[in-house]
Amino acid sequence: MDYYNALKIAKQAALQAGDIIRANLGNIVHEFKSCPSDLVTEVDRKCENIIVNHLAEHFPEHHIVGEEGTEKEKILPGKEEFTWYVDPLDGTTNFVFGIPLCTVSIALTYGNQVAAGLVYDPLREETFHAVRGSGAFLNDCPIRTDSTRKKLSDSLLATGFAGNLEHRNYIHTVNMNGVIMECNNLRALGSAALELAWVACGRLTGFWEVALKPWDIAAGKIITEEAGGQTSDLQGNELQISNYISIASSNRLIHDELIDRLNSTD
Amino acid sequence: MDYYNALKIAKQAALQAGDIIRANLGNIVHEFKSCPSDLVTEVDRKCENIIVNHLAEHFPEHHIVGEEGTEKEKILPGKEEFTWYVDPLDGTTNFVFGIPLCTVSIALTYGNQVAAGLVYDPLREETFHAVRGSGAFLNDCPIRTDSTRKKLSDSLLATGFAGNLEHRNYIHTVNMNGVIMECNNLRALGSAALELAWVACGRLTGFWEVALKPWDIAAGKIITEEAGGQTSDLQGNELQISNYISIASSNRLIHDELIDRLNSTD
Repeated sequence: MDYYNALKIAKQAALQAGDIIRANLGNIVHEFKSCPSDLVTEVDRKCENIIVNHLAEHFPEHHIVGEEGTEKEKILPGKEEFTWYVDPLDGTTNFVFGIPLCTVSIALTYGNQVAAGLVYDPLREETFHAVRGSGAFLNDCPIRTDSTRKKLSDSLLATGFAGNLEHRNYIHTVNMNGVIMECNNLRALGSAALELAWVACGRLTGFWEVALKPWDIAAGKIITEEAGGQTSDLQGNELQISNYISIASSNRLIHDELIDRLNSTD
Repeated sequence: MDYYNALKIAKQAALQAGDIIRANLGNIVHEFKSCPSDLVTEVDRKCENIIVNHLAEHFPEHHIVGEEGTEKEKILPGKEEFTWYVDPLDGTTNFVFGIPLCTVSIALTYGNQVAAGLVYDPLREETFHAVRGSGAFLNDCPIRTDSTRKKLSDSLLATGFAGNLEHRNYIHTVNMNGVIMECNNLRALGSAALELAWVACGRLTGFWEVALKPWDIAAGKIITEEAGGQTSDLQGNELQISNYISIASSNRLIHDELIDRLNSTD
């Protein structure tokens, strides 16, 4: 499998989706009104269709799982089991409100491992990508997680809150207030894929969130790891790509302290 | 006093400061390393000097108070008491880490009232401005707070955490977790001036933060109010421009519910 070629093809679709996101966010800002939910759905679906159709055309034997409901099961006898996870618009709430923090996230897994991933930020025209074992890149320049910050007290962290209130309730399973009182500062930017990519390039030192979906984190996970960072579940164990995922991601140096603090009770 | 001319002059300086912020954030991102603290201080001070010198030249009889320590006391006998509040780089931590959410905030007060204000976002080249009684504008187009969201459950809110840990501790005087479980979602973007400006143009429905300084909020306060929004302290009382300021800001429609929830104990 030529993962670089696969990402090149994924990027073609991501750029097209990004054009639509940028154009419609612009309209909303321009008109100074909220975005009707059908427009959001339309943009979300249109972007997913573009990406899924493009991938299906080039990789007819791959599974494709999308945030907007795509589930193409394409297991052919004797074929290797590749799955694409597609989030056509990560940061939908930001998009609805006109906040320019939205991304397109596309990852390719082989078996249960992420093999390659791409996060595209159409508002800044920044593409983050990584192939397992080959480093991480921002607009084709190598990136590394921040090696200068070794303690939570020096770290700029980020977290997020699930849209679904039942899932959001799981924030109480970790000691967010404890982390807030310990870290340099905390952000909540509203796009997990963007936040993971920003950990990878050192704009953030770490990130955690509960109850995310595979398409939110698969690309950001490999980009962070290939940039020298660490990802795990909130107990510090290896992260599994499953239906609901709680993730901690960092520059590696603060990972144990972040996990300890999230699980502390004071 | 011609407040429009005053803002025009302030904007000339804000654009210059913005050029420096943009250029240096770009360098940090490009080099993928953290920004030495002396560089931050240098950028912060250089921007403040540009703005303060420009204002002092055009308004020699005005006080000027800056985030970086400027305190020009210029009370001349018989002159009216005007004070400029200057934050040359709101979102310093974002700037240090390379996160493109930073603003220049400049406000002019007369007596204890904000008379005019300007928030400039150099990364998106967006200028928010307002003069008391004359509406609020984004790049010279009128803006209004979001009139479609009337409940916390529909609202995208933002908050922030003081850099100083002693002040950050005051977050426990409000029920942040209660708000998180009630609102549509919560952001923490790291620039109070930007968040207030985004409430004004409807990208956020509301914002609160404890222990801010006058230069953080003076411009954003008048821009929000002139866009149809409401500002108050965290008990819902009229906001005073004092040494430490806790502020709630919203589209007016959710203000009472936001204040109630912040002060609830469950």
